[in-house]
Amino acid sequence: MARPETITSASNPLLKDIRRAVVRGGLTQEGWCVASTFHLLEEALRSDCEVKVLLAAESVRSAAEGHVKGLGRIKVVVVPDALLDGLSGTETTQGVIALVKPPAWRLEQLFRGTALVVVLDGLQDPGNCGTIVRAGEAFGVTGIFFLRGTASPYNPKTLRASAGSLFRVPFLDGVDTALVRAALQQNRVELYAGVPARSGVRSLAQIDLTGKCGLVIGNEARGVGGDLRSAALDVAIPTVGVESLNAAVAAGIMLYEARRQRALRPV
Amino acid sequence: MARPETITSASNPLLKDIRRAVVRGGLTQEGWCVASTFHLLEEALRSDCEVKVLLAAESVRSAAEGHVKGLGRIKVVVVPDALLDGLSGTETTQGVIALVKPPAWRLEQLFRGTALVVVLDGLQDPGNCGTIVRAGEAFGVTGIFFLRGTASPYNPKTLRASAGSLFRVPFLDGVDTALVRAALQQNRVELYAGVPARSGVRSLAQIDLTGKCGLVIGNEARGVGGDLRSAALDVAIPTVGVESLNAAVAAGIMLYEARRQRALRPV
Repeated sequence: MARPETITSASNPLLKDIRRAVVRGGLTQEGWCVASTFHLLEEALRSDCEVKVLLAAESVRSAAEGHVKGLGRIKVVVVPDALLDGLSGTETTQGVIALVKPPAWRLEQLFRGTALVVVLDGLQDPGNCGTIVRAGEAFGVTGIFFLRGTASPYNPKTLRASAGSLFRVPFLDGVDTALVRAALQQNRVELYAGVPARSGVRSLAQIDLTGKCGLVIGNEARGVGGDLRSAALDVAIPTVGVESLNAAVAAGIMLYEARRQRALRPV
Repeated sequence: MARPETITSASNPLLKDIRRAVVRGGLTQEGWCVASTFHLLEEALRSDCEVKVLLAAESVRSAAEGHVKGLGRIKVVVVPDALLDGLSGTETTQGVIALVKPPAWRLEQLFRGTALVVVLDGLQDPGNCGTIVRAGEAFGVTGIFFLRGTASPYNPKTLRASAGSLFRVPFLDGVDTALVRAALQQNRVELYAGVPARSGVRSLAQIDLTGKCGLVIGNEARGVGGDLRSAALDVAIPTVGVESLNAAVAAGIMLYEARRQRALRPV
């Protein structure tokens, strides 16, 4: 590998751009995802996502070169540890930050085969959103909609919680409710809204999820918004004692149930 | 209500004790849980946990008095907003901190009826631990073991993620593997270790979870440790594409499945 470049000034434009993206919870101004762990870097590489540059703290540079497969193809820039630590916000840092090109998806790619779609409706916690994308990939989701008002898929915390699944699962960001409703209707997708358990609401295991279907996961406090709820059938996970489940746990259970049913009755 | 006390100095011993508990991720030196949301305060009150004191930021004091049922029974201390904000670490603050007496449980209380026990084996993320406790209550878990080396149930972040379930679900903290093994054996509890899906491992829906059983949830990176794994049957949630699920999502799914089976075949 050629001798890597170094950055030594906190006012370097690239570092400033990354810091802004971390604070804002989105892409850099040039449109790159901030991937801040070794694991995400490896996931980006195995998912054939373009990596613009890898910033490596001085102390981890040789470890990175020894451990990450495919690193030879990437431009590496060495940064003093203190500067790199200052970029990651409140998160713990592993001493690496990769700028990764976010995949771009077309609407129809979210509905392939027997669609199993997730609609994130106003979730605020990027950790929840990323965890749902990770569970989504695990259970064969065909696409994920991030409705306007939901945490960004490009928030470095979302990306981190997705453990790399955001590089592979088709998704659209900042989408209008009207567009989602139209797309679901056009693709003949039955829509289910996850709601807290109460009498009169059908419970998850009673719903047939083997056909084309979509699951709406609502905001952590307010639940699913009215616009989508009116287009969906309410479905609840039977629980005792609690007001609700964590949003990512609820989504994971709904997707597990869909996958379980589909395995029993292959489609 | 009597005119509340006020604290105006950052070097007040109570504030210093709380700050240390937040930083350390545990109880205060006097053994109180730090509950840092309105919701947790309400949950503590409805769970009949003793509340030593409520610290309320000046700006939220009257809102607190108007909204929280049962507040009349509690000693309220008013603190300048900036001082209270400084206590919550990196978490967003709602302007309240309640000191709550942690419930104390005896071992046998974790095995009531047809035991459904969770063993947390080295999980590092307090958010995951709390989320699992919340799902545990939702699905009727009888008890939760926090093995030594696991994030503390008394970490304010664990408590917050539990959404108050930690005030109600029987648990033991800092437990030795040997003690757990002995207790499980004595109570005739079948033990299952959650592992990543691979060929040869039985999948979750094939396991009968209607009898007394325990589920081991392992460390986020390393999984279940050898000591418990040798005493347990491996069980996997069938997934595609990912190395593993988020630990709290995996635990939630295992508990959902146990509850689903028990509803079909009441015990």
